[in-house]
Amino acid sequence: MKLAKILPFTRTLMDLAVNEGDIAVDATVGNGHDMLYLAQRVGESGHVFGFDIQKEAISATSARLQEHNMLQRVTLFQASHDQLIEKIPAHYHGRITGAMFNLGYLPGGDKRIVTKPDSTIRAIEQLLQIMAKEGIIVIVVYHGHPEGAIERDALLHYTKAIDQKRAHVLKYEFINQMNNPPFIIALEKRS
Amino acid sequence: MKLAKILPFTRTLMDLAVNEGDIAVDATVGNGHDMLYLAQRVGESGHVFGFDIQKEAISATSARLQEHNMLQRVTLFQASHDQLIEKIPAHYHGRITGAMFNLGYLPGGDKRIVTKPDSTIRAIEQLLQIMAKEGIIVIVVYHGHPEGAIERDALLHYTKAIDQKRAHVLKYEFINQMNNPPFIIALEKRS
Repeated sequence: MKLAKILPFTRTLMDLAVNEGDIAVDATVGNGHDMLYLAQRVGESGHVFGFDIQKEAISATSARLQEHNMLQRVTLFQASHDQLIEKIPAHYHGRITGAMFNLGYLPGGDKRIVTKPDSTIRAIEQLLQIMAKEGIIVIVVYHGHPEGAIERDALLHYTKAIDQKRAHVLKYEFINQMNNPPFIIALEKRS
Repeated sequence: MKLAKILPFTRTLMDLAVNEGDIAVDATVGNGHDMLYLAQRVGESGHVFGFDIQKEAISATSARLQEHNMLQRVTLFQASHDQLIEKIPAHYHGRITGAMFNLGYLPGGDKRIVTKPDSTIRAIEQLLQIMAKEGIIVIVVYHGHPEGAIERDALLHYTKAIDQKRAHVLKYEFINQMNNPPFIIALEKRS
C-alpha cells in the first residue's frame, strides 16, 4: 500500500511540528507508544507532558519510557486532558509545537472507560490557547463503539466551526472501508 | 503553513506512484501544468497520455511541453477522458501507475464547459481496469460552481461504494474553510 495509513500519517504530521528541543503533549498516553515517539523527537533538550485518567496507563507509559531511559524527558499526570492548561507550568505555554490524541478506550484496558466529547473539546480549546503558532494537534478518532460515534459527531461539529483564521482543520479519512475505521483530524494553530 | 495544502499534496501523492520509466495519465490537461510535472517524473523512458475536450487546452499544453522540450514524452488527445481505454494503446494497459483529474472548468477558459459526473466516473472505472496494481488516481474536486456541487456528490457517492478490496479511497480535506475550497479524493488500485 502506497497511500499512508492512518497511524503512519499521524507520525508524518507530527514530524512536521515536533523537533529537537520542542515541547509536546500526549493528551491520551494509553500504553505509551506515542509518548516514546514524542520523547525521541524532542530529544534531551525538549520535554513531553502526558495525560491519562487511568493509573494503569500512567504505569505502562512510565515503564516504557524508563526502559528506553527517557523518563527524564517526560512529565506524566494521572488527570483528564482538560486540566492541561493548569497542569503544564506556565513558562511552557507558547512553546508547545505538537499534541496528540487517540480517542476512545485504552487498548487492552476497560472498554467502559472512554474519552468524552466535552472534555476532549475543552482540551483542544486549551491547546489552541497555549500552543506555539503553527503548532499541530493530531486527533485519531475511533468511532466504532457507540460513545465513539457520539464523540466523532461532536468533534466534527466543533472543528468545522473553528474560524479559519484561528486554525486550519484537516480531515484525512479512508471513505470506503467497512467497520468504522479510525480517521484523523489535524489542527494547525494560526493565531 | 505546515500542513500540506491541496495542490502540493496532490504532488506528494503522485510522487508515491509515478517514477522514471512509468506510464501516467492526465485526464484533464487544462493549461498543462500537471502534464509538465508528469513528463518530468516519467523521464525520457516513460510516457504521459493527456486528455481534454477543449482545443485551447490541447494547444496550451502542447506549447508548454514543447517549451520544455518534452513533447516527445507525451501524447495528447482532444477527447473526453471517458475514451481513455480506447485511445491509450493496449500494450500500455497494465503499466499506468498514476493518473490525475482536476475537475471543473479550464482556468481562464469558458466556465460553461465543465467536467460531468457521468464521464468522470466512467473514466475512473476505465483507469481502475487498465492501471497497474498500486496505481494511484488523484482527483481534485472543485465544487464552488453549481455543477461542481452535483459532480462532488455523485463522485462521493460512487467512490464510497467502491469495494475496499478493489481500491483504497482516501479523502483529504480542510473542513473549516469558507467558499467551498477544493479537496482531494485519491484511489489506490488493489486488484
